[in-house]
Amino acid sequence: MNFSSKKYKKNFDYSYAIGVYATIELLTHQPSRVIKIYIHRKGEKNKGVLKIQSLCKINNIETEIADGLIENLSSSENCYAVGFFKKYQSELSADDNHVVLDSPSDMGNVGTIMRTMLGFGFIDLAIIRPAVDIFDPKVIRASQGALFQIRSQYFDSFTQYKNLFSRNYYPFMLAGRNMNELALKNPYSLIFGNEGAGLSHEYLKIGTPVKIPQSDKIDSLNLSIAVGIVLYENFKPHR
Amino acid sequence: MNFSSKKYKKNFDYSYAIGVYATIELLTHQPSRVIKIYIHRKGEKNKGVLKIQSLCKINNIETEIADGLIENLSSSENCYAVGFFKKYQSELSADDNHVVLDSPSDMGNVGTIMRTMLGFGFIDLAIIRPAVDIFDPKVIRASQGALFQIRSQYFDSFTQYKNLFSRNYYPFMLAGRNMNELALKNPYSLIFGNEGAGLSHEYLKIGTPVKIPQSDKIDSLNLSIAVGIVLYENFKPHR
Repeated sequence: MNFSSKKYKKNFDYSYAIGVYATIELLTHQPSRVIKIYIHRKGEKNKGVLKIQSLCKINNIETEIADGLIENLSSSENCYAVGFFKKYQSELSADDNHVVLDSPSDMGNVGTIMRTMLGFGFIDLAIIRPAVDIFDPKVIRASQGALFQIRSQYFDSFTQYKNLFSRNYYPFMLAGRNMNELALKNPYSLIFGNEGAGLSHEYLKIGTPVKIPQSDKIDSLNLSIAVGIVLYENFKPHR
Repeated sequence: MNFSSKKYKKNFDYSYAIGVYATIELLTHQPSRVIKIYIHRKGEKNKGVLKIQSLCKINNIETEIADGLIENLSSSENCYAVGFFKKYQSELSADDNHVVLDSPSDMGNVGTIMRTMLGFGFIDLAIIRPAVDIFDPKVIRASQGALFQIRSQYFDSFTQYKNLFSRNYYPFMLAGRNMNELALKNPYSLIFGNEGAGLSHEYLKIGTPVKIPQSDKIDSLNLSIAVGIVLYENFKPHR
């Protein structure tokens, strides 16, 4: 199968990881989804590219040199690999703790959140629509390939999610208990709103509203920063 | 004085804040730097624009309707104001705690870090060159105008900074003491490296290296997430 250098669109049934690091993550964690790997001639002696070639050999995956295609898809001059894969669906674990994003609209934020989740031992990400497409190459790039280790599942509403996963809900709002004064009970879901609007007031009635202590000099923290702080707080060895 | 809709360049002696929120921040915290405010006809009845007009009146600042200029400078359809100001220099406080960024290269990260600093009560930001231009409108936008409450100062090297500010240095690296097990001593500087490369090994000999506890599933956290977690840890009321 041959791919053109047409930029990704949401209705494609495939997507691609750009760059050596993300391509290695793809091959390591989702080898069965990979369709084909393209390599740039300039990178043939690059250590990461050698690792990609060895992973492709083990998994019987086709590789091809395609400088033009890579240059078209990547905005970076030193991109040595692009990995095409078939998009897939995951199901969240009912036992593990979840991160829930309600209507996230910034691809960079969602990718960064995936990378941060992995850094603090969270694997399950529920996304309430309307929301960004997690398979957009911009999300994959911001996640630095962490996407391939995350289980993500879309829901049409929080109610739909709630009917499937009964557990302790902690919506993060500007009102509520201070996060660091609260011991969360497993299994739980940490719920965050949209970058601009936050969570609607209806969430005040869902579970235990929590806030991150902060000064009154800003309206709110950036979404990915807020999620990072909350995941850190629930990962670090407590004193 | 009239401005053209020429995009910002580093060598300009002025810059501009895009959007109502950032323009209000500019007018509130740096009124003496403001040169002129442009307003979009569509926003004439907008509450924020009315606030801008009242702040301009108080401070005797010129305003003008200029739809075309605003549409050219902003990528958003609903941008109602752009505030032009003269670039300025700040000096860091010798008594307060600092954030030090060594060679930051991502404008979004630097803006987000400024906003997060303000959220956790940090005002002083030292930047070691080479580094992004903090007055680039992209930084101002990511900071959501927090820039106008931050004191930032550039240095050509860490040595130059160190010679001016003698205090406790905490470089954040992948090795070192766990941050949450360490009581920082005032006044201190929290030092973070470049997005890609982190801090060089030389920092191991400078002060007390610290790390954020994290899983081994990722290489490192995103820079702005790492800074956010560290500032939060040093702001929140401890149990």
